Amino acid sequence: MKKRILASLLCYPFLTHSVRAQTDYQTDSVFISKIFNTALGDGKCYEVLRHLTTEIGSRLSGSPGAAKAVEYTRDVMKEQKFDNVFLQNVMVPHWVRGAKEQGYILNGKLKINVPIAALGGSVATPKEGIKAQVIEVKNFQELRALGADKVKGKIVFFNRPMDPTKLSTFEAYGAAGDQRRAGPSEAGQMGAVGCIVRSLTTRLDDVAHTGSMRYASGAPIIPAAAISTNAAELLSKMLKEKPGTEFYFKQNCETLPDAPSHNVIGELKGSKTSPQYIVAGGHLDSWDFAQGAHDDGSGCVQSIEAVRILSVLGYKPNNTLRAVMYMNEENGLKGGIAYADSAKSKNEKHLAAIESDRGGFIPLGFGIIGTPAQKSKIKSWSNLFAPYGLHEIGPGGGGADIGPLGPQGTVLLGLVPDSQRYFDYHHASNDTFDKISKRELELGAASMASMMYLLDKYGVE
Amino acid sequence: MKKRILASLLCYPFLTHSVRAQTDYQTDSVFISKIFNTALGDGKCYEVLRHLTTEIGSRLSGSPGAAKAVEYTRDVMKEQKFDNVFLQNVMVPHWVRGAKEQGYILNGKLKINVPIAALGGSVATPKEGIKAQVIEVKNFQELRALGADKVKGKIVFFNRPMDPTKLSTFEAYGAAGDQRRAGPSEAGQMGAVGCIVRSLTTRLDDVAHTGSMRYASGAPIIPAAAISTNAAELLSKMLKEKPGTEFYFKQNCETLPDAPSHNVIGELKGSKTSPQYIVAGGHLDSWDFAQGAHDDGSGCVQSIEAVRILSVLGYKPNNTLRAVMYMNEENGLKGGIAYADSAKSKNEKHLAAIESDRGGFIPLGFGIIGTPAQKSKIKSWSNLFAPYGLHEIGPGGGGADIGPLGPQGTVLLGLVPDSQRYFDYHHASNDTFDKISKRELELGAASMASMMYLLDKYGVE
Repeated sequence: MKKRILASLLCYPFLTHSVRAQTDYQTDSVFISKIFNTALGDGKCYEVLRHLTTEIGSRLSGSPGAAKAVEYTRDVMKEQKFDNVFLQNVMVPHWVRGAKEQGYILNGKLKINVPIAALGGSVATPKEGIKAQVIEVKNFQELRALGADKVKGKIVFFNRPMDPTKLSTFEAYGAAGDQRRAGPSEAGQMGAVGCIVRSLTTRLDDVAHTGSMRYASGAPIIPAAAISTNAAELLSKMLKEKPGTEFYFKQNCETLPDAPSHNVIGELKGSKTSPQYIVAGGHLDSWDFAQGAHDDGSGCVQSIEAVRILSVLGYKPNNTLRAVMYMNEENGLKGGIAYADSAKSKNEKHLAAIESDRGGFIPLGFGIIGTPAQKSKIKSWSNLFAPYGLHEIGPGGGGADIGPLGPQGTVLLGLVPDSQRYFDYHHASNDTFDKISKRELELGAASMASMMYLLDKYGVE
Repeated sequence: MKKRILASLLCYPFLTHSVRAQTDYQTDSVFISKIFNTALGDGKCYEVLRHLTTEIGSRLSGSPGAAKAVEYTRDVMKEQKFDNVFLQNVMVPHWVRGAKEQGYILNGKLKINVPIAALGGSVATPKEGIKAQVIEVKNFQELRALGADKVKGKIVFFNRPMDPTKLSTFEAYGAAGDQRRAGPSEAGQMGAVGCIVRSLTTRLDDVAHTGSMRYASGAPIIPAAAISTNAAELLSKMLKEKPGTEFYFKQNCETLPDAPSHNVIGELKGSKTSPQYIVAGGHLDSWDFAQGAHDDGSGCVQSIEAVRILSVLGYKPNNTLRAVMYMNEENGLKGGIAYADSAKSKNEKHLAAIESDRGGFIPLGFGIIGTPAQKSKIKSWSNLFAPYGLHEIGPGGGGADIGPLGPQGTVLLGLVPDSQRYFDYHHASNDTFDKISKRELELGAASMASMMYLLDKYGVE
């Protein structure tokens, strides 16, 4: 690593502009190398993630798993001797899947079971399930153009794949996500009795990927589910061969009354007279059938690790550094909203917040939401990040949970890892601990710690 | 993708230097975007790799699997309508493992079986195996300092881990590899009866990672094997508690007479009067108990795909573009040597060669070996690679198989993917097809095709 740092020193001619800048650069680059050495050589986050995902498991808001995860991450930060660890109350939606769904394609006498998962927020089918002919569409325009007569009494099947040619899979996800989020209401408004959606993944496989949906105000409430991409391909093929092909599904989900839960917060206290706050965060909740290893156990343990590393290296921050485990990103964002509301009411000025919610993959940079001057200041640290492969400083956003802090003037940063594998596991039962690379996870934590250090030392103005 | 290209155009002020440069940049960036779109949207290499790894499987030089892989990749390139596909004869070492090894730790009455794999090139143990006390050392100096009296009749155990704090796992591998390659002879020269080596991986797990070793001239020939990192940790702990702890192992490997095999070569012919050659290559052989998905099935299928994409896009190269599947990288490099010898004897001037042999992970750049002027010219294309996350243009080397072309003045390039996960699977039974990300594999192929295109269009001088 030393060699790379030296090379970096030699490569950046602007460093000679002033002795002060050079000294700072040297100090910072040495400190950042210590951060990375600690993360890779003596990291704790992989073991914390192992416990969170394999011992506790799934953590949907309101579930026993979510409650255990709150206690566990609080205890971890206490054991790691954070200055202050506390819970923040938040009421969360409480949706439960109930008994496992069933779904199959019916083609004459042929019955083919397919992987299926109710969408988060969907209602159940009637107890006997729903069986109906299927109308396949790629988008809402196509659906509307069909007219209510053709849709009435049918199951609408949204089957527009994520565009594989988009380099960023998040971009492809963004362009396909309306089918899942709003598709059920669009279908209901046209008289459909049910809605099935092609799983939002770039892979062809046999895994159903869930995710949240929301019924539009006044729209008929019809049940909705995701089916695997292989099942979507098969159903599409069969519909072309025999347009009368039917689909059956039965699901048992329901929305219970809101439940009490918590954000979990650990602090390393700032030494300034009136310290501001810098947050590293992820969300503690996951979907109900997933270990939530990449989404977003990784972000949680990286946030804890970022603050821990700065603490064990003896760094005395100017501002108060917080690791925040947000509750309920998946189906409500209540934790993020409660956190920002609390900051506002307590007049806790937040300088910056960094979120990791794009999986524990190799980190490539940070997205920034802030003023041009703030972005420019943060980009001026690029030479300190480049030796660690963090070249993408600027593009991309912050994160859902920290978003509500934006109106308070907080600079929002998102850790940007490689996105290629994220949707292989997103909202699915295969998002498990064995998909995590220890080193990639640790590099993300070190990247966040380095950014926290620079934000704390130099501010954002 | 268009958005990113536009952003790139706006970001690179040097483009305004001349209208010519701008036109070229626009032409090139549009063509490169087509390369990436083809790879991601209509790629063939993932399916070729599936067949190579799961239908054919392991491909150690001289094995039936290697012979099948030669025929299969030849047939693939013929089906893909390469202009010319042919085999190049090469005699290769023929080492076979024989029946599965056995190894266990003996501590009084306690007997603990451990994962073990003979090193490639090692001799067998006597039929009854070897049982002896164990001397643990970290390096050759420590071994020599012990003196022959303490080592004689023992099994030497090299247990220096790969340094986890090295950002590049290849750097850590380089610093630990002497134990495997030369450890057995060092131990033999001190009177040891056997040698065991901690597996060269950054993980703690239960997989034995093999790899080649070589007996030094005149050194005693003793059997040598790798044990898993968890076994190494356990053995080390037990030796501290009870220094008389013994180890037993039995292996059945042998070196047969050299065997006939082949490099596999496919061409897209150059249109110049005297075309030179540009190679994309990987090695077709793998270790005997591995599917060799990352090492180096990936590099083979990416090389085929790089040339195929340029062909289907209708690109008419100036020079002849070759995809080369080298045989015998793992334990002899005979294919790389034979290829370079043939090029020399036929006076086939090779402009450049690109190797992919660092796994099918997300590509981050290219290493270059060439003159300063050649490096500088290739680096001047950085702005064309940056939109695809290829920021590391320059550092790192070429590749073992293309190395023998170096003395002929060929510029040597190595595709540099993320290295964090490579040694999780390197030379081990878990290097299987399911560890491959389709998109990451395809992005590597597109990166190689883009580099071939620029090398062909602009040359290296």
